[in-house]
Amino acid sequence: MSTAVDDQAGRFVEDLVVGQSASYAKTVTEADIVLFAGVSGDTNPVHLNQEFAEQTVFKGRIAHGMLSASFISTVLGTKLPGPGAIYLSQTLKFKAPVRPGETVVARATITAIDKRRVTLATTCQIGEIVVIEGEAMVMVPSRAG
Amino acid sequence: MSTAVDDQAGRFVEDLVVGQSASYAKTVTEADIVLFAGVSGDTNPVHLNQEFAEQTVFKGRIAHGMLSASFISTVLGTKLPGPGAIYLSQTLKFKAPVRPGETVVARATITAIDKRRVTLATTCQIGEIVVIEGEAMVMVPSRAG
Amino acid sequence: MSTAVDDQAGRFVEDLVVGQSASYAKTVTEADIVLFAGVSGDTNPVHLNQEFAEQTVFKGRIAHGMLSASFISTVLGTKLPGPGAIYLSQTLKFKAPVRPGETVVARATITAIDKRRVTLATTCQIGEIVVIEGEAMVMVPSRAG
Amino acid sequence: MSTAVDDQAGRFVEDLVVGQSASYAKTVTEADIVLFAGVSGDTNPVHLNQEFAEQTVFKGRIAHGMLSASFISTVLGTKLPGPGAIYLSQTLKFKAPVRPGETVVARATITAIDKRRVTLATTCQIGEIVVIEGEAMVMVPSRAG
Repeated sequence: MSTAVDDQAGRFVEDLVVGQSASYAKTVTEADIVLFAGVSGDTNPVHLNQEFAEQTVFKGRIAHGMLSASFISTVLGTKLPGPGAIYLSQTLKFKAPVRPGETVVARATITAIDKRRVTLATTCQIGEIVVIEGEAMVMVPSRAG
Repeated sequence: MSTAVDDQAGRFVEDLVVGQSASYAKTVTEADIVLFAGVSGDTNPVHLNQEFAEQTVFKGRIAHGMLSASFISTVLGTKLPGPGAIYLSQTLKFKAPVRPGETVVARATITAIDKRRVTLATTCQIGEIVVIEGEAMVMVPSRAG
Repeated sequence: MSTAVDDQAGRFVEDLVVGQSASYAKTVTEADIVLFAGVSGDTNPVHLNQEFAEQTVFKGRIAHGMLSASFISTVLGTKLPGPGAIYLSQTLKFKAPVRPGETVVARATITAIDKRRVTLATTCQIGEIVVIEGEAMVMVPSRAG
Repeated sequence: MSTAVDDQAGRFVEDLVVGQSASYAKTVTEADIVLFAGVSGDTNPVHLNQEFAEQTVFKGRIAHGMLSASFISTVLGTKLPGPGAIYLSQTLKFKAPVRPGETVVARATITAIDKRRVTLATTCQIGEIVVIEGEAMVMVPSRAG
């Protein structure tokens, strides 16, 4: 029996069952917002300008929706199915804002397996509040090759 | 004649017409990949481990799909419709990989306007190759309040 | 009628008139100060060490002056004249400190146009308080080539 | 005799003489450019979009001029005169571009001392090429209080 936890190996489709789920949680900081603005180029003032943001329906700065959405990619790419899976598609409904200091829990739950094509329900939550919901599809390696 | 270029003001729904489009282009660098890994937590070795990535179908490291997807958010949040719009939803089909050094052009084109709800076709391309396609919906402010 | 919003195209000198202005506003966060320290190497304790900074005339940490000055570059390089302009010179008088959490509005106003050489009055303000003032010169492309 | 090297203490005006100089050198990386874009909001494509930048007179991406200028602030704030000095003004002439991978040496040399007001000639160079030149003025603490 191997006792090594190989961080690089994702799961094969034969290891997956409907209902399996995994999560990744991260606190969204001011630093994440500034860095995300840099890599994305998204300098929308609702993210970066407190005075502007206070005049909006959000009443203050909010994080980029795609920043929270990226945590879903983290679940899929590092946990379930993990490395080796190929990201085919993602739908995202942005339902509530995320503010600096809040902790987002991204979760993916397998809803269907069709040969090597796996569908997952994906959510991002802050406590009980769903901030993003949607569906991911990934192609997963098979032991059959 | 107003001579001020107001950087904070996005467009009102009354300013939009079907067929209008805008784009944002960015070269994806190694730094973007590392920083995106940091803010997202997505440490999938296909993005960060050249030796692992060479063994995959991609034959080398690729950028996070959500990094290119974030450029769509940049178009919507800074160009069309710009600040003030509220991001409702996004669909993403990941059709081809993006490698370090490649320049991604994200484009959004208005396909429907229903009261304040605006639908846009969204693509990310490297040259002629579509790497992401999908659809965005945003809620846009009205001059009618 | 063109319906494309071309994000990459700045203005030609033929599009500019004296009195035209543009602005960019950003809230300066702790994260900006740390990241600016990292990229600049400016680890002056007045920016990074609260105990040191409290003993100074500023009575607390202040942002790097060059961080606020960089917002002027943002106006010139992304708004007025925008991409394609070449930054020739900038003068900066640092008149008041900027503290974490404050929102800086950088503004550039065209004061003179001499062939392709354009002069702009540049200010950074927090509310009514001018924190930086100076003058920029840029070389702007001409439709005449 | 104190043998501690106190990193927080800058120089008093009584310690300064005309001709004194100090420098700070840093290699400008892709990461610095992305991070600077985030903190400044300056997403000018000449810095971030290789395809755009290749069409310009620069024939490729260049670093933000204010990024190199920030290295002058590093000299003044950490070396000469160091912590405790107050930055009054800076002039900057941008004379040549800086490209990713190049190492910029920022140097400040005292040219005049008028009571507590000190003037320094400031340059940024890549090898023998002057990329920025200008003048700084700082207010320096006195042992006389």
